[in-house]
Amino acid sequence: MIAGIIGAAGYVGAELLRLLSDHKRVEGLSLGSVLVEGDRIEDVYPNFLGKISSPLLKPEEVIAASDIVFSALPHGIGEPYAKACLEKGISFIDNSPDFRFDDDEETFKAWYGASFAHPELRQRSVYGLPELNRQRIKALASDGPVIVGNPGCYPTGASLGMFPALSKGLAAGTIIVDASSGITGGGKEPQKAFHFPECSESLSPYKVGSHRHVPEISRNMHTMAASGGEKAPPLIFTPHLAPMNRGILSTIYIPLNAKWQAPVNDTAPRPPSKEIMAKTAEIRELYEAFYRDEPFVNVLPAGLMPATGRVRRSNFCDISVNMDQNGCTLIVITAIDNMIKGAAGQAVQNMNIIMGYEETEGLKALPSLF
Amino acid sequence: MIAGIIGAAGYVGAELLRLLSDHKRVEGLSLGSVLVEGDRIEDVYPNFLGKISSPLLKPEEVIAASDIVFSALPHGIGEPYAKACLEKGISFIDNSPDFRFDDDEETFKAWYGASFAHPELRQRSVYGLPELNRQRIKALASDGPVIVGNPGCYPTGASLGMFPALSKGLAAGTIIVDASSGITGGGKEPQKAFHFPECSESLSPYKVGSHRHVPEISRNMHTMAASGGEKAPPLIFTPHLAPMNRGILSTIYIPLNAKWQAPVNDTAPRPPSKEIMAKTAEIRELYEAFYRDEPFVNVLPAGLMPATGRVRRSNFCDISVNMDQNGCTLIVITAIDNMIKGAAGQAVQNMNIIMGYEETEGLKALPSLF
Amino acid sequence: MIAGIIGAAGYVGAELLRLLSDHKRVEGLSLGSVLVEGDRIEDVYPNFLGKISSPLLKPEEVIAASDIVFSALPHGIGEPYAKACLEKGISFIDNSPDFRFDDDEETFKAWYGASFAHPELRQRSVYGLPELNRQRIKALASDGPVIVGNPGCYPTGASLGMFPALSKGLAAGTIIVDASSGITGGGKEPQKAFHFPECSESLSPYKVGSHRHVPEISRNMHTMAASGGEKAPPLIFTPHLAPMNRGILSTIYIPLNAKWQAPVNDTAPRPPSKEIMAKTAEIRELYEAFYRDEPFVNVLPAGLMPATGRVRRSNFCDISVNMDQNGCTLIVITAIDNMIKGAAGQAVQNMNIIMGYEETEGLKALPSLF
Amino acid sequence: MIAGIIGAAGYVGAELLRLLSDHKRVEGLSLGSVLVEGDRIEDVYPNFLGKISSPLLKPEEVIAASDIVFSALPHGIGEPYAKACLEKGISFIDNSPDFRFDDDEETFKAWYGASFAHPELRQRSVYGLPELNRQRIKALASDGPVIVGNPGCYPTGASLGMFPALSKGLAAGTIIVDASSGITGGGKEPQKAFHFPECSESLSPYKVGSHRHVPEISRNMHTMAASGGEKAPPLIFTPHLAPMNRGILSTIYIPLNAKWQAPVNDTAPRPPSKEIMAKTAEIRELYEAFYRDEPFVNVLPAGLMPATGRVRRSNFCDISVNMDQNGCTLIVITAIDNMIKGAAGQAVQNMNIIMGYEETEGLKALPSLF
Repeated sequence: MIAGIIGAAGYVGAELLRLLSDHKRVEGLSLGSVLVEGDRIEDVYPNFLGKISSPLLKPEEVIAASDIVFSALPHGIGEPYAKACLEKGISFIDNSPDFRFDDDEETFKAWYGASFAHPELRQRSVYGLPELNRQRIKALASDGPVIVGNPGCYPTGASLGMFPALSKGLAAGTIIVDASSGITGGGKEPQKAFHFPECSESLSPYKVGSHRHVPEISRNMHTMAASGGEKAPPLIFTPHLAPMNRGILSTIYIPLNAKWQAPVNDTAPRPPSKEIMAKTAEIRELYEAFYRDEPFVNVLPAGLMPATGRVRRSNFCDISVNMDQNGCTLIVITAIDNMIKGAAGQAVQNMNIIMGYEETEGLKALPSLF
Repeated sequence: MIAGIIGAAGYVGAELLRLLSDHKRVEGLSLGSVLVEGDRIEDVYPNFLGKISSPLLKPEEVIAASDIVFSALPHGIGEPYAKACLEKGISFIDNSPDFRFDDDEETFKAWYGASFAHPELRQRSVYGLPELNRQRIKALASDGPVIVGNPGCYPTGASLGMFPALSKGLAAGTIIVDASSGITGGGKEPQKAFHFPECSESLSPYKVGSHRHVPEISRNMHTMAASGGEKAPPLIFTPHLAPMNRGILSTIYIPLNAKWQAPVNDTAPRPPSKEIMAKTAEIRELYEAFYRDEPFVNVLPAGLMPATGRVRRSNFCDISVNMDQNGCTLIVITAIDNMIKGAAGQAVQNMNIIMGYEETEGLKALPSLF
Repeated sequence: MIAGIIGAAGYVGAELLRLLSDHKRVEGLSLGSVLVEGDRIEDVYPNFLGKISSPLLKPEEVIAASDIVFSALPHGIGEPYAKACLEKGISFIDNSPDFRFDDDEETFKAWYGASFAHPELRQRSVYGLPELNRQRIKALASDGPVIVGNPGCYPTGASLGMFPALSKGLAAGTIIVDASSGITGGGKEPQKAFHFPECSESLSPYKVGSHRHVPEISRNMHTMAASGGEKAPPLIFTPHLAPMNRGILSTIYIPLNAKWQAPVNDTAPRPPSKEIMAKTAEIRELYEAFYRDEPFVNVLPAGLMPATGRVRRSNFCDISVNMDQNGCTLIVITAIDNMIKGAAGQAVQNMNIIMGYEETEGLKALPSLF
Repeated sequence: MIAGIIGAAGYVGAELLRLLSDHKRVEGLSLGSVLVEGDRIEDVYPNFLGKISSPLLKPEEVIAASDIVFSALPHGIGEPYAKACLEKGISFIDNSPDFRFDDDEETFKAWYGASFAHPELRQRSVYGLPELNRQRIKALASDGPVIVGNPGCYPTGASLGMFPALSKGLAAGTIIVDASSGITGGGKEPQKAFHFPECSESLSPYKVGSHRHVPEISRNMHTMAASGGEKAPPLIFTPHLAPMNRGILSTIYIPLNAKWQAPVNDTAPRPPSKEIMAKTAEIRELYEAFYRDEPFVNVLPAGLMPATGRVRRSNFCDISVNMDQNGCTLIVITAIDNMIKGAAGQAVQNMNIIMGYEETEGLKALPSLF
């Protein structure tokens, strides 16, 4: 089986290349680029020199040569390639947001300022967060080639931290996601914000209240809440840039409804009470049960905190379940590798699901210690 | 004037040494240590070799030689030295939490597991956050030597971000402070969490719901709210460890009461509306007015985000005022240098206030670009 | 086939675990520890929690359960385990220096201050640098179980940069190796030199003129020179600690004998002449020819410099061949990942050779971009 | 006294601004820029917002307003401003290489590909390395306004490490300088080599054998050797990029002539002998004597190694004197802050010398611990 990658010269494309090179079912790769077509991948990434060698073809050539195509292009330019894939009868896994909103063009327009090029393609597209949509992905794929809207990096870490609470109706009000990403999230192009002397040794927020991942996370919240017959609360999302290469840590504040609270009487704050610990353990069990069969989601035991460094270079999501000392708010923290579970790894996971391979194939690498 | 530093061998002590060496009114320094008494400061910090040279004396010797004493000792062991200073007739600026809770021994016990050694000392002690307590500090000092409970690092950044909102009664519910600190916050002693391969390239939370700065921040909230005749809401505080040396970034979520909201009608989230922008500008002006005369607090213009790297090695606190896209929650972000405004710099600022020096003396250094 | 790891709780042990988990011929692992025997590997490394789970056994138990044993113990304590392996009839791959000096106990004593516990084991031991000793390793292994003295990290990067020059007799005087290592080279135990605030944002030399890798590099130089009927020149080696996790960069200065020089006439220095470029190209070809069949050594084209980040998490060694502007000194620069080609990866490579597996099995991972 | 800075928007310019803001004799600053003239400094550096505020004027306006002018422009464009300063009767301190080669236009052309615009200006110019040229700088300045060619960053660290050896004739052959710089050395403009994901966690050499600082270091070697009636040996210089913001570490290999050697008899390398230790101590004393009166140069005691982190944000140069285990080569290691002693600090030091101020004025800051 030949896998194609359009946009192979970008960071997500190169990470796909690295993962797919080590995938048992992938016999060959076809690499493409819009911007640097004609160059070779080892010229773009000297890391690969002497280890892997390939020209960067035109997208059309990649599609012609492949049995499945991954796209790591920016939003707004990939729809024609998705269309061409469907016409050829092969699936298209898109890392842009173009297919993350199903037929909700209104929301896509409001946040991305662009229309759908081929709205009809949404009949064959599905949002590719396996922990939310595995059955829908499988069902659609059982019926022919599909387009997968591979989730954004922040939405993956944020959504996985909320799903159990939302599906069981624990949330009683606005959910806040305070998240930080490594600098690879900004992509390959040098710019001031990612210039080493500017961003190393510094932490800063950006796009407060206006990041494009807001509608995607919100959408996931509604889908999951609806699955449990619930309504999702509003969302606040604040992204930050952290001085490291990889990883997203999401600290998620979920106000609990009365049933799940362990309120305290003290007027002055006190360290968490036994009642709070007990209630937290109960909710942690609920999370563990929810994710029991998920191959890539780990609910950590009490006392162990997630760290982005502990899921580094792996497709895992570590989740910790805690409560504040007032006993009224659930604090869930998740860690993922933004380039793996947050992008290329999840895309491979979606390929595995679509193609009927073992879902963990090519993604079994343990987190790297450093 | 001779300034004494007890605990000079720790990071805060050494930072005090660096700042006081460049203070016009300080003619000499007397350095002391409990743990490595007898060593020389340049042996502990080879950075200083050939530039400054001093033995590390016993605390008693430091007190005897000094006109004011700074302590950078851990909690629970400095009270006798504070007492000795008062008895000698000189002030004592304490970087431990021992004097941060006035006479609320109950709260101190609950979080620090220790009693006050000399409760009566609280008659001459004051919590040293100038932006909250400048008049109280001055008043007490006008009357003789004082003890200053120099604020914790997180409480400084968190409190400065909330004060204008609390004093004007904007807050309508639980305030969340999601903060990240550089690794110097963990001190000088090597341990696993601060071992380079463990903490570089990683971000992680710790002491979720149970950090000892919770009661200190909460106390500041109540003091400030009371100053405006208001009651403070509950607090949630989550600290994180970020892979950098210096700095604390605090992202603070303050639910607004109806008067200050700019609610939206859409069910699906949309980028911030004009009404939200206008309301945010109004609140930003309120913050600017509140801090107009503060020498170390900057309210940033719309669109400019704080970064810990932009207050590096300075006593400044940068503050940005924002609102979420729902129009119901204020998002205030503050950046300080944890070792300066969060510790040693603020201690010097308190010395200046107590001694009647210009408040910015020794603290005028511009932030260092890198 | 079951592979055992003694010392699995250290960094090299854990890296071995990660690599062997992904090795096609390894059906199971048996993990052991001397220091934390009784714990579980996922307690020592929370990274592995939920992904891999194993008790840490006694070394004897590991040996009993395994078909080959890797040791990541420090020097001076592993010989009894090597002996036990031979007695059981299985091979032992040792990451300590115990078996790196063949029967030269004198040198081992001079630098490590310890004697050989079982000198007779050297009859079945071989120094495991495949690019130097592949045939000796194979020959010895063809005859029964063996002990491999897996090379040190610095000696690997330094030796690979010198071999072609030494085997062809290019060197005319003392060779200088100026090398820098990432901080994982210091191991897992927290100590001042590796405390984040001490070592991040800083570069420093250590053990100048007295590092224990001097005799190992020197020995390799002699072995290689002798293979070409030459004598090796003296060695100077200076290690540095660089603020990064992985990687060793070695900049190697080799004074050229007259035949290989391209001397310039100018008294004032000028940029490299065409003659120098031509001579450099000639030597580069010699390097390329020397390493043509090596699966893990890449000689880079003119103009491309090695970077530790470009061999990250791979078993590759990148080599660049240059000359100084005087035309008299060869400057060879090599980059390896200290934990892979410099330790765990090379150990796996040795296992592959000993066991008759494909030499690259389990080591095909492309360098990780970040 | 008003100090002007042309090129204030670059990193060196901004660092000059920071240092001069804290200089007792500087009453005001006039900032200029060629590229972003018309902007304000606080727009270019949000760090300064609310702390310092100034428009960026045309160079001509800066000259008109100032009593001394610093230039942080690139090479080849500043000569007209130098000329204008002399004509106005004020001194010009240039951070570009334009005035580092006295009247040796040939060498300047060979390495920079440009001619001198106003060769006659060299009659009033002097190379500004105080430890080499203090008397020449003073003498020239006693006679009217001068132009100072402020040294390059690498040449400063390299030259200071060689001067005592060269002036006393210790060197017997080619000297090798193996140096690494922090990333601020690359300047403010974002580019691939300084993009965080490309350069963090990586170390790499660049411009091997062809860096433009070769002729400047070589020139300094000749000047110093000549001062002792000696001839300087050839130079090899290899720069590297290290993943940190500030600092240059230079490891310098100086082959000793027979008189200063402590050769060993062993054929196999052994740890440094007592004779070597004794000889090293002798040479260390020679270094200490040479720098005894220098305010910014520290010769470290035996056993203490320089680290760039230990001179951080200071004008100091730390030097360590060592010998290799063969007893034939001196290994001198120096650490400076590339932006301070390697650029802006040294420029201020030159201003102090020219203007007759205390040489350490404005440069007394202790190294920052982190």
